[in-house]
Amino acid sequence: MSFRYIFNKMKNYITISDIKNLQQTISEALRLKKENTAAGLGRGKTLGMLFFNPSLRTRLSTEKAAKLLGMEVMMMNVDKDGWTLEFEDGAVMNSNKAEHIKDAAAVLSQYCDIIAVRAFPGLENRDKDEEDLVINSFKKYATVPVVNLESATGHPLQALTDALTITELQNVKRPKVVLTWAPHPRALPQSVPNSFVEVMQRMEVDLVITNPPGYDLNPAVRKNTEVTHNQDEALKNADFVYVKNWSSYESYGTILSEDKSWTFSEQKLKLTNNAKIMHCLPVRRNVVIDDAVLDSSNSVVIQQAKNRTFAAQAVLKMLLEEKRDF
Amino acid sequence: MSFRYIFNKMKNYITISDIKNLQQTISEALRLKKENTAAGLGRGKTLGMLFFNPSLRTRLSTEKAAKLLGMEVMMMNVDKDGWTLEFEDGAVMNSNKAEHIKDAAAVLSQYCDIIAVRAFPGLENRDKDEEDLVINSFKKYATVPVVNLESATGHPLQALTDALTITELQNVKRPKVVLTWAPHPRALPQSVPNSFVEVMQRMEVDLVITNPPGYDLNPAVRKNTEVTHNQDEALKNADFVYVKNWSSYESYGTILSEDKSWTFSEQKLKLTNNAKIMHCLPVRRNVVIDDAVLDSSNSVVIQQAKNRTFAAQAVLKMLLEEKRDF
Amino acid sequence: MSFRYIFNKMKNYITISDIKNLQQTISEALRLKKENTAAGLGRGKTLGMLFFNPSLRTRLSTEKAAKLLGMEVMMMNVDKDGWTLEFEDGAVMNSNKAEHIKDAAAVLSQYCDIIAVRAFPGLENRDKDEEDLVINSFKKYATVPVVNLESATGHPLQALTDALTITELQNVKRPKVVLTWAPHPRALPQSVPNSFVEVMQRMEVDLVITNPPGYDLNPAVRKNTEVTHNQDEALKNADFVYVKNWSSYESYGTILSEDKSWTFSEQKLKLTNNAKIMHCLPVRRNVVIDDAVLDSSNSVVIQQAKNRTFAAQAVLKMLLEEKRDF
Repeated sequence: MSFRYIFNKMKNYITISDIKNLQQTISEALRLKKENTAAGLGRGKTLGMLFFNPSLRTRLSTEKAAKLLGMEVMMMNVDKDGWTLEFEDGAVMNSNKAEHIKDAAAVLSQYCDIIAVRAFPGLENRDKDEEDLVINSFKKYATVPVVNLESATGHPLQALTDALTITELQNVKRPKVVLTWAPHPRALPQSVPNSFVEVMQRMEVDLVITNPPGYDLNPAVRKNTEVTHNQDEALKNADFVYVKNWSSYESYGTILSEDKSWTFSEQKLKLTNNAKIMHCLPVRRNVVIDDAVLDSSNSVVIQQAKNRTFAAQAVLKMLLEEKRDF
Repeated sequence: MSFRYIFNKMKNYITISDIKNLQQTISEALRLKKENTAAGLGRGKTLGMLFFNPSLRTRLSTEKAAKLLGMEVMMMNVDKDGWTLEFEDGAVMNSNKAEHIKDAAAVLSQYCDIIAVRAFPGLENRDKDEEDLVINSFKKYATVPVVNLESATGHPLQALTDALTITELQNVKRPKVVLTWAPHPRALPQSVPNSFVEVMQRMEVDLVITNPPGYDLNPAVRKNTEVTHNQDEALKNADFVYVKNWSSYESYGTILSEDKSWTFSEQKLKLTNNAKIMHCLPVRRNVVIDDAVLDSSNSVVIQQAKNRTFAAQAVLKMLLEEKRDF
Repeated sequence: MSFRYIFNKMKNYITISDIKNLQQTISEALRLKKENTAAGLGRGKTLGMLFFNPSLRTRLSTEKAAKLLGMEVMMMNVDKDGWTLEFEDGAVMNSNKAEHIKDAAAVLSQYCDIIAVRAFPGLENRDKDEEDLVINSFKKYATVPVVNLESATGHPLQALTDALTITELQNVKRPKVVLTWAPHPRALPQSVPNSFVEVMQRMEVDLVITNPPGYDLNPAVRKNTEVTHNQDEALKNADFVYVKNWSSYESYGTILSEDKSWTFSEQKLKLTNNAKIMHCLPVRRNVVIDDAVLDSSNSVVIQQAKNRTFAAQAVLKMLLEEKRDF
């Protein structure tokens, strides 16, 4: 079966919506986890990984995924190792930006068969962040497939991992999945919860989002997903709880609350249906989730992290095959 | 045919003059571009790449070239990842320099089969920059071949790329090649124009250099190459125009002019014989070259960047073969 | 013969005492130096290398060793590329530390088959440094073998290299080996001398330590090894002299002396039995050891550096085999 049926668009993985057939992609990832059947597929191909921000799991799991496919990996901390990039079209480049994304993306496309990029939002200007300028510029100017390693508005490799992990662990046909906000000392992006909501909306699950007032996610992402401001109510009968902080979308990029009563504790766990507890990591222990929960057998955060490799491998595999077939 | 006939000196690629037979080297690079016939040559060999300055094209294209030959690549941002190096012979090392180049180069030679180094000039002291201390210290103390990834005075991998690109694209037997200065907000090295002039002097081309007064390149490099301060005059009938900024050699390292009339524009392009426009990148758009030119079909800057891989591969291949034969 | 007889503990290389059969391990390293008989052993396995501090030899020699075994290597400058780590158990993570070592080590164990870590001491609080918190936290929380790339209190890869080098070069059955302190402008860790003393105590050598008053090493390391404050006396009849600075253990982390009479000079060399001069590098020339000695044929510092590869290869090989067998 051709992979044109898996990807909507030919050649990028920018949002979860770039996957057309989600169940098939999840199955592919689980197959690769069981047995690496594509070890030679990437031979002679190169993955370029570009970081504008720190990374541990994404960096190492994607590098590992590429190598499991036989690809070479070239890694750059863009602003530290390379040149400061200009993203504005038509800019007169007489200030501190040394290279235009137009040229950088075109050049990288000469050396790499797939380009993967991480670039966080500034969290100061909502309109600007929603343009998702860095990843979309690479998409626009690169002539090879582009993979999102977490952009201003989404983290689709994490979301695919999360879908994979729930699929692996669910023991009812239609589990209740709760995404709950939790406090955090710093203002964080909405990219992880955005992509999680998007992928869950395509799964056979009952999804509930719970967060304090003022923390409702982008309506264009939420759509008709139920949102409640009563965390305890939301947690009832939950089979999976995804705990995650994000900064306000309405009062864009600000911290409206550090309310400790939203920290995910043993007491909160007891409200659930013995739920599996998920988090994308890194997690602030005893602020976002208590040690007692993270160190309990209900926590699946390490298994989630392991699955990053296979989600990335499935995506890279499909991009490589796409290239071959078309 | 033995490669002793290609390289003048046994085992380094420090300046373009280290290539004895330029045409043969260009042909080799073009052959490798068409088909990677040397994929196993570097197996079990290691390229060490050392950066004292930022790099994108040089870093990735050389890494890729090495991997196309089957080599392993070890990469270091020297001053960030390693120890601050002392270059002065006989120094009493009681200040902030932790390791002498003598030892660093000898040690790296234990782990690497070829060492490649990037180290820009300070642009403050001409005599000091002309010693080209970093690359020449590696040459002196390393016991394996040393490759110049751009030094204080030259960028021979770029120059070989440029010769390659002109060879590929020329449609007259003896094209007119113009190297023109252009404005830039920062003081840049003369390394790229130096090596370009050196390589063009060995090609079957009519080379003209044009720059404002005070910007004449080192006379030892220029030799008898024609220099004019009238850009429009120089551009007439040009088949190739290499646009590049450099800081003054005479008033060493300073910016004497930011004259916008030297920016390479559509109007300038019209003066030429529908010339191919070259630049080593990164390029300051609308300062060095206008968008209208860079985004036109006359621009070959991306093709140039692609050719970096094959120039590097030809050089590494010859160094590997040199090692084997002697 | 099973490698359970070489390693005391199953799966780490944290201190030299993790090697049970030192002679066998040295022989293995020397065999690997002569011929790489284990080029396929690490295929499909990944070494993760984590740096909290600069490194040149350790970084490159260990990377090379892993690749000689066919392993993939993933490299991170932890605090620069990744997240700032929290090491305190039970911490409420509401300050600047983004990820707990518990989670980082568990996650890295999902991507790597062996984890190697470099983390220097702070040299401010002796009790804290002696906990060797970073390496021991990885040991505690990782589920794969952990290798010490130099920790607060030891540098066992260097020590194994040193044992290897002495074994290679000794021409008497029981050489006299002198470890001598030398001056240095900065306060350095005791990790190298500690591990050197530990490994020499297990070799058939006469070991003497010489240092100024106030610089005696940790009594728990020294044990019954002879210590003299008279350098000239100590050097008499020495077959090997290991020159190294360290900061005071008693007045912890301080510089008590920069006495130039302790610099290892040609005059000092003449006091020995034409000794081989060793140093782990990087070395401050003309402060720790004079040029005249380092550039003489008595110096074996480059050969030592070369042996780092084979010591690392022997350790990694044994850890890989351990994993396979049990």
